[in-house]
Amino acid sequence: MVKISNKDQYEFQGSGISGNKVYDLYLRMQEDVLDKNPDIVVVYVGVNDVWHKTLLGTGTDADKFEKFYLAILKRFKEKGIKAILCTPAVVGEKTDFSNPLDGDLNRYSNIIRDIAKKNNLPLVDLRQQFQDYYKKNNPNNEEKNILTYDRVHLNAKGNQFVADAMWNAIKAL
Amino acid sequence: MVKISNKDQYEFQGSGISGNKVYDLYLRMQEDVLDKNPDIVVVYVGVNDVWHKTLLGTGTDADKFEKFYLAILKRFKEKGIKAILCTPAVVGEKTDFSNPLDGDLNRYSNIIRDIAKKNNLPLVDLRQQFQDYYKKNNPNNEEKNILTYDRVHLNAKGNQFVADAMWNAIKAL
Amino acid sequence: MVKISNKDQYEFQGSGISGNKVYDLYLRMQEDVLDKNPDIVVVYVGVNDVWHKTLLGTGTDADKFEKFYLAILKRFKEKGIKAILCTPAVVGEKTDFSNPLDGDLNRYSNIIRDIAKKNNLPLVDLRQQFQDYYKKNNPNNEEKNILTYDRVHLNAKGNQFVADAMWNAIKAL
Amino acid sequence: MVKISNKDQYEFQGSGISGNKVYDLYLRMQEDVLDKNPDIVVVYVGVNDVWHKTLLGTGTDADKFEKFYLAILKRFKEKGIKAILCTPAVVGEKTDFSNPLDGDLNRYSNIIRDIAKKNNLPLVDLRQQFQDYYKKNNPNNEEKNILTYDRVHLNAKGNQFVADAMWNAIKAL
Repeated sequence: MVKISNKDQYEFQGSGISGNKVYDLYLRMQEDVLDKNPDIVVVYVGVNDVWHKTLLGTGTDADKFEKFYLAILKRFKEKGIKAILCTPAVVGEKTDFSNPLDGDLNRYSNIIRDIAKKNNLPLVDLRQQFQDYYKKNNPNNEEKNILTYDRVHLNAKGNQFVADAMWNAIKAL
Repeated sequence: MVKISNKDQYEFQGSGISGNKVYDLYLRMQEDVLDKNPDIVVVYVGVNDVWHKTLLGTGTDADKFEKFYLAILKRFKEKGIKAILCTPAVVGEKTDFSNPLDGDLNRYSNIIRDIAKKNNLPLVDLRQQFQDYYKKNNPNNEEKNILTYDRVHLNAKGNQFVADAMWNAIKAL
Repeated sequence: MVKISNKDQYEFQGSGISGNKVYDLYLRMQEDVLDKNPDIVVVYVGVNDVWHKTLLGTGTDADKFEKFYLAILKRFKEKGIKAILCTPAVVGEKTDFSNPLDGDLNRYSNIIRDIAKKNNLPLVDLRQQFQDYYKKNNPNNEEKNILTYDRVHLNAKGNQFVADAMWNAIKAL
Repeated sequence: MVKISNKDQYEFQGSGISGNKVYDLYLRMQEDVLDKNPDIVVVYVGVNDVWHKTLLGTGTDADKFEKFYLAILKRFKEKGIKAILCTPAVVGEKTDFSNPLDGDLNRYSNIIRDIAKKNNLPLVDLRQQFQDYYKKNNPNNEEKNILTYDRVHLNAKGNQFVADAMWNAIKAL
């Protein structure tokens, strides 16, 4: 989560923790986010909820993912915090839809897209934006080293890409 | 969870939901338990946290299991609610430790036993009590139909067994 | 596997067994296929190799899938049997690539497509043909009841679709 | 697999490959074992068949494990090769049965024990022997660094332990 405590003179604060899934955010949101009284929170979660299914057997069921996601947003609404949602970007950068988790990432992205639409919340559709970027910049159908260094974690270019996308959404508020 | 709102004249209320894992309890404990002002809550969770790893890829990591479990107990303590902890009983009733999930259930049971000890809370060690029962009552090493009808879900005898064990712990408070 | 023992007057024989993965075919191919001296064998495998990863934890690694597939084809070649390859069709019929296993099915389909190309073998690309069919016949992005009745197993229309596709490949030999 | 081509003056040859499961042995047994005309083969497989279920989603179903195991033994019998069977030792060295895969390893070990008994074949029950060793030599219930360095792979002491156990079985033939 990125929190911004002042709209004119933005102050960013990262609250993400490696390996977290949606219910981890819910568990620690009071201390790590709400107690700091942010104006805006960028919610970026979902990769581990899908990825850990096959990696560890401890992913998140789709219905539970939605339930916790909505519970987080409810708390933000009660506090008057503006939420910006993000879809999970990638596990694998291949462009021919043959990354093993592509289907499930699309499914969880659809859940987030639906939530954004129904709740009239701004969405940074990272998954779609990454796909669009790959069409132009991954002509050899590589599985990594485009915006990630290991299929999942962002390299310098990927970090800049995500920062730009989030910044565009923040400015548009 | 079983809630009891009056100590002299006990009133039981079941709050368990099929398929729930520890974080599901945390998510709904306010509405489903705390809002009803119980004196005592019997916490019985853990089978799905282990079982769903292989069944659905959506079990609960051991460290997260402990973290959410402690978060639940913290809320009880704040409210002055007495908690009784239970270990997860079984997935498979074989007595030769060859039920596929025996090791992982023992691991999660150990987490709960440690929590009970460190927090000086009463424990209904169902896993141990089931094992003791099987030693006498499952001479043919059957995987089901002793206290469950399908290796997991309790039959009439199993329900009575668990009810008796919980009742003993409640009386002892 | 479908075996045809006479080219002019075709005699079909089904050898498929529910739940089989590529190594199961390898284990029983001598008795169930080679001993019957077929002229042509249609190899249709891959859905369980992907699906059982999340369903049972017992899918097939991609590299092993290719290795066993090639071992089967080698035996056919030694016997002078003509092989027709098929890609695994679907687990879920959604058209927006949000069926959880879409990415992995595409990956295993690519393995089979590569094998067909390198070995100059005819390919019934069921996965591609199903996608093409859905574009026209699944306007509401349904996950089942188009060519399957449960996201995986074929309904009457699906069986006819696959039979036609295989027949076209057999005639073209 | 360890192969011995001469009974009086033993010549050992290792044929094990890291990550192999029972069906991998079956696939390559002709080239890697049978073609070398061994007198004795020590079959040591099973850890990956259990472990890869949660590690990669690509373990081996219990019924398939038995089927491939028997198919391997059948080939040995046809060739007049003496087989020595081994149970899979450990994934985790804890002594209180709380290693997550203990139950499933016991289950697959039971399959091998049954095969040995029914076929009157010598068994090196590594799983049992490791447990016995731990009772005396792992007083602090450590999960590694007794006979393994990472819960699975043998350290120097573990390698010696297994070598001694296999040697005892070979001498007893």
